[in-house]
Amino acid sequence: MTISYPGHGLDRADHSRTDPALLAALRARADARLLLMDALSPVLDAANGLSYGAAADLPPDAETVFLGMDGELPVFAVVPAEGDDRPAYLQKPNWAAIALLGLQDMALYATARSLVDWHARHRFCARCGAPTHIAKGGWQRDCPACTAQHFPRTDPVAIMLVEHDGDLLLGRGTQFPPRSYSALAGFIEPGETIEQAVAREVWEEAGVRVHSVRYIGSQPWPFPSQLMIGCHALAEGRDLTVDYTEIADARWFTRAEVAEAMERRADGAAFIPPPAHAIANAMLGWWLERAR
Amino acid sequence: MTISYPGHGLDRADHSRTDPALLAALRARADARLLLMDALSPVLDAANGLSYGAAADLPPDAETVFLGMDGELPVFAVVPAEGDDRPAYLQKPNWAAIALLGLQDMALYATARSLVDWHARHRFCARCGAPTHIAKGGWQRDCPACTAQHFPRTDPVAIMLVEHDGDLLLGRGTQFPPRSYSALAGFIEPGETIEQAVAREVWEEAGVRVHSVRYIGSQPWPFPSQLMIGCHALAEGRDLTVDYTEIADARWFTRAEVAEAMERRADGAAFIPPPAHAIANAMLGWWLERAR
Repeated sequence: MTISYPGHGLDRADHSRTDPALLAALRARADARLLLMDALSPVLDAANGLSYGAAADLPPDAETVFLGMDGELPVFAVVPAEGDDRPAYLQKPNWAAIALLGLQDMALYATARSLVDWHARHRFCARCGAPTHIAKGGWQRDCPACTAQHFPRTDPVAIMLVEHDGDLLLGRGTQFPPRSYSALAGFIEPGETIEQAVAREVWEEAGVRVHSVRYIGSQPWPFPSQLMIGCHALAEGRDLTVDYTEIADARWFTRAEVAEAMERRADGAAFIPPPAHAIANAMLGWWLERAR
Repeated sequence: MTISYPGHGLDRADHSRTDPALLAALRARADARLLLMDALSPVLDAANGLSYGAAADLPPDAETVFLGMDGELPVFAVVPAEGDDRPAYLQKPNWAAIALLGLQDMALYATARSLVDWHARHRFCARCGAPTHIAKGGWQRDCPACTAQHFPRTDPVAIMLVEHDGDLLLGRGTQFPPRSYSALAGFIEPGETIEQAVAREVWEEAGVRVHSVRYIGSQPWPFPSQLMIGCHALAEGRDLTVDYTEIADARWFTRAEVAEAMERRADGAAFIPPPAHAIANAMLGWWLERAR
């Protein structure tokens, strides 16, 4: 059994990206939609959905990315002046807003935010230092000086539920809100598999060896551009050596404690679980469900 | 059932990366090992293993990356003057050399190659264009002008076995050697899950809708820095609409054809399978094995 998320519902129409004339025609259409963002934050409508304007209202030289076709309608987003690669929970208004989005809107916002933030933080060529320009509808940047091509990043992150004797190992980031615990996680490094990254991160952060790593599901996370890869693993023991330079705490929770926390009775529960729109929340739900 | 790969056997010793004095001491040790590379290619010893020299023989200003501890011995690699981000099969001597490496050596080479190639192609700050300098033992670059931090890339790629009625869909890249077929594959884009990337790529390249996507295993692939995420999916039908701008061909193969090809009787077989050190080869073996 795995967990899955809905897509954003747009046809990414990748062939249109490589056809500058077609792209320009899509961009010039009076009915071309513009996904509204306040810099990098979503702009919610009255029903807490994403809001749209008209791409035609943009200045002609606005840097835009082509997100795809929503049925017959092309959808664009604008690159802001500056990016922001801080974790989501440090972007307070944004953090509150995304909690209100449905999963399909979250997927579209994730795509748009990752793309436009990447452009805003990558206006120069990493190979030669020259200014680059947006290409292929926002899915590439080209360097006119050295001809290098640059592509938006997607950084794979391993996030894992570690189990021992029916209990679950959860941890706190150093800047988490009080009493919040979530699954341990870390970037997958060059030269390792998903499973090796899971084992290394749990060892580094909590001092526990794991085995039997298995994949549960994945979710894009646009702060700034992670692909969260959810896994389950079994611990060889329950003695912990927490690395307090990396995380604020890690401890074992019983199934009853996890179940109570997920029922959102925050006052009485042992911890506050991750928000509903994060994969860690779905992973905890998966874990409770599968053991019933 | 999943497929798995051995790690490179080194302790990545990530704490050492953040301690400049400790790093310098490791680098200065007379017994510090240097993984030898000919630019970006592995240098094989008589037993087709990786070769090592002494880090002490390097000039003091050589840009080095710290790969980790091999038991008590620190292991380093050197950043070459230039990188190379072409696909592996276009790097002919290299392609031949890696086929001779064992899987554990391949994992270490993959780590080293991805890291040093990334440095060679990312000497400037993408945010402001200024020259950057290597930091944290090669696991970061810092910009002294705008204070941006940059991290080595790991680009997730979905690679998939698509099955219909017991047959398997395989394709040819436009620059593959003659008669070679492999699993379809493509970069996971910002804003999509692994499963959505599988479905999108198969639809774009072969015109087939898939369902029941499941994870099989993962492998790092250092040309230049992919994390290959192997999946299996079921096709809704067998009519193909191949996108010849993306791939040279795609077609269905019977189980008998796949089994014969994997037995390496290249002359008589329907196709030449992917090389033994690529995840696609292990995936084909997994597929044949599980249906027995």
